[in-house]
Amino acid sequence: MQQVKAYGILSAALPLGPLQIVRRDVDADDVAIDIAYCGVCHSDIHQARNEWGNSLYPMVPGHEIAGIVSKVGAKVTRFKVGDKVGVGCLVDSCRECPDCKDNLEQFCSRPVFTYNCLEKDNKTLAQGGYSTKIVVHQDFVLHIPDNLPLDKVAPLLCAGVTTYSPLRHWNAGPGKRVAVIGLGGLGHMAVKIAHAMKAEVTVLTRTLDKKDDAKRLGADCVYETRDPKTFENLLRHFDLIINTVSVKLDWGQYLGLLKRDGTMVLLGVPSDAPQVHAFSLIMGRRSLAGSLIGGIKETQEMLEFCGKHNITADIELIPINKINEAYERVIKADVKYRFVIDIASLK
Amino acid sequence: MQQVKAYGILSAALPLGPLQIVRRDVDADDVAIDIAYCGVCHSDIHQARNEWGNSLYPMVPGHEIAGIVSKVGAKVTRFKVGDKVGVGCLVDSCRECPDCKDNLEQFCSRPVFTYNCLEKDNKTLAQGGYSTKIVVHQDFVLHIPDNLPLDKVAPLLCAGVTTYSPLRHWNAGPGKRVAVIGLGGLGHMAVKIAHAMKAEVTVLTRTLDKKDDAKRLGADCVYETRDPKTFENLLRHFDLIINTVSVKLDWGQYLGLLKRDGTMVLLGVPSDAPQVHAFSLIMGRRSLAGSLIGGIKETQEMLEFCGKHNITADIELIPINKINEAYERVIKADVKYRFVIDIASLK
Repeated sequence: MQQVKAYGILSAALPLGPLQIVRRDVDADDVAIDIAYCGVCHSDIHQARNEWGNSLYPMVPGHEIAGIVSKVGAKVTRFKVGDKVGVGCLVDSCRECPDCKDNLEQFCSRPVFTYNCLEKDNKTLAQGGYSTKIVVHQDFVLHIPDNLPLDKVAPLLCAGVTTYSPLRHWNAGPGKRVAVIGLGGLGHMAVKIAHAMKAEVTVLTRTLDKKDDAKRLGADCVYETRDPKTFENLLRHFDLIINTVSVKLDWGQYLGLLKRDGTMVLLGVPSDAPQVHAFSLIMGRRSLAGSLIGGIKETQEMLEFCGKHNITADIELIPINKINEAYERVIKADVKYRFVIDIASLK
Repeated sequence: MQQVKAYGILSAALPLGPLQIVRRDVDADDVAIDIAYCGVCHSDIHQARNEWGNSLYPMVPGHEIAGIVSKVGAKVTRFKVGDKVGVGCLVDSCRECPDCKDNLEQFCSRPVFTYNCLEKDNKTLAQGGYSTKIVVHQDFVLHIPDNLPLDKVAPLLCAGVTTYSPLRHWNAGPGKRVAVIGLGGLGHMAVKIAHAMKAEVTVLTRTLDKKDDAKRLGADCVYETRDPKTFENLLRHFDLIINTVSVKLDWGQYLGLLKRDGTMVLLGVPSDAPQVHAFSLIMGRRSLAGSLIGGIKETQEMLEFCGKHNITADIELIPINKINEAYERVIKADVKYRFVIDIASLK
């Protein structure tokens, strides 16, 4: 066991601060990682503040981890010391259920999330990436393509795969019209990835403030949703809508923008559940669906895809002592487009 | 033009009664049909009573039409006098839009429904099957398999295809677990068809009153939804749920019964739109979808399928003068499982 410097939270009402945590010894199948960077996901904030009501303290958030392998166990063959690696939202799963067998561990009924979750021993609290080191079973460690810088790659481990997975699953590609609702951490990744998949990409955003940015990121079109004409002009227009926002929208209005057999995929969870009128689905045989991060195999596939297309996140690098301020700015959507913690500042 | 006896309604507040209507002369592409039977669909009642707010009067309802060809136009090659034929919810469409070109005329933006709709001339009111004769373009007339009795086949033209289409589209078949919510006109057809497709069929119904009937129709299992245990025991159980009811249910509770990647398809429209919590879709990558009748090609396919598997509706045959009483009984779900009007009683 090893004492490790971290930054975490002792109860929902407190700010984050320095913590000492313990990492397990490197077992035969384990990979020890010196963390270099960790992205700041909105769900870090939800969980730090117990907004989902399931928080376990003390909590070290962080599931967008990028670093360098410092040690490997005896049975580890796929990684060696010095490799650039990543860890996302999952550090283990049951390995036996149909979802695990289909490489979709995110739907396993007993997953081990990177933090705010009990390890498989049902005692130890898993602790996340706002820390200098982590030890992870090799099956849940990802290779990072050599051409991608570690700081900008960190957000791919959650925001990247969370948008890649539905784009792939619902067949974004040439000849397909994809809309992305919201241009934040998830939205800006969805735009880059859908564009690289050669779909026609439209950003639907409240105002046109980010129009130039959206175009730079790869959007073909940008429309403002505060203008009712947007919903008239784009009727029956899209094959796929990726809804990255957690605020309550009139989903029926957006479903009307789908072509026949189109799907709107929800990635965010509005706390106040919207009403859905059956007509908005029956007309055009439309679907409203949800998607949750991605499996490990798919996360690796996403990283290769991003390597090939030279895709990383647009980030704002911060030292760890700016984390509480960063949380406030995430809540105000005041970041372009992801905060990443420079873990060197914690050492 | 020809005067034809019919039964219809002059305004939402009145009961149905005898009406004279006019049928057009048989044009080159037309098929004239002596109607033998017409099924009574719940949507007949919604429209007769203007419950969707779009009713056009005088209205002769009826879109589950079975009869015999009495005359064909010069260009009609696929039908001859004496053929057993059917007409469903559609009697024409624009023929040019992507939906029409994909044989999914039900999603055409300018369809001609069998009644409560303007014909293509934008003047003549289309009038439905509670009448002795109808004249329909050959492209919207269906062949009825010889082995199926005309009275019991009539409901296939709406209830049959409305359930066949989503079962086919969402791949009901061997190894798939299909749940049917509600055992009424649509539900009993869904059970028969899903069973013939060799899916494992479960009926979810408020009470177990219809349990024996459900099993006779082809259900493998029947569960009552007033028992909360049903929702615990069947968690993550189904690949597909066909929701045939129009009452407001807790859709989230039913979505929980879907396996990963499962879909719940809505066929009915609750007037009060239910709330949908994003978690119920995100967990398990589930979909909530809708489906609307079926295209003409698919309706013919459904009739061949029913011919092959000897599937017809369970009906209660009534004379036309019992129609107002029948409407009241449909509203109380007091029919096993479809009223069919014996049009001989109108002659």
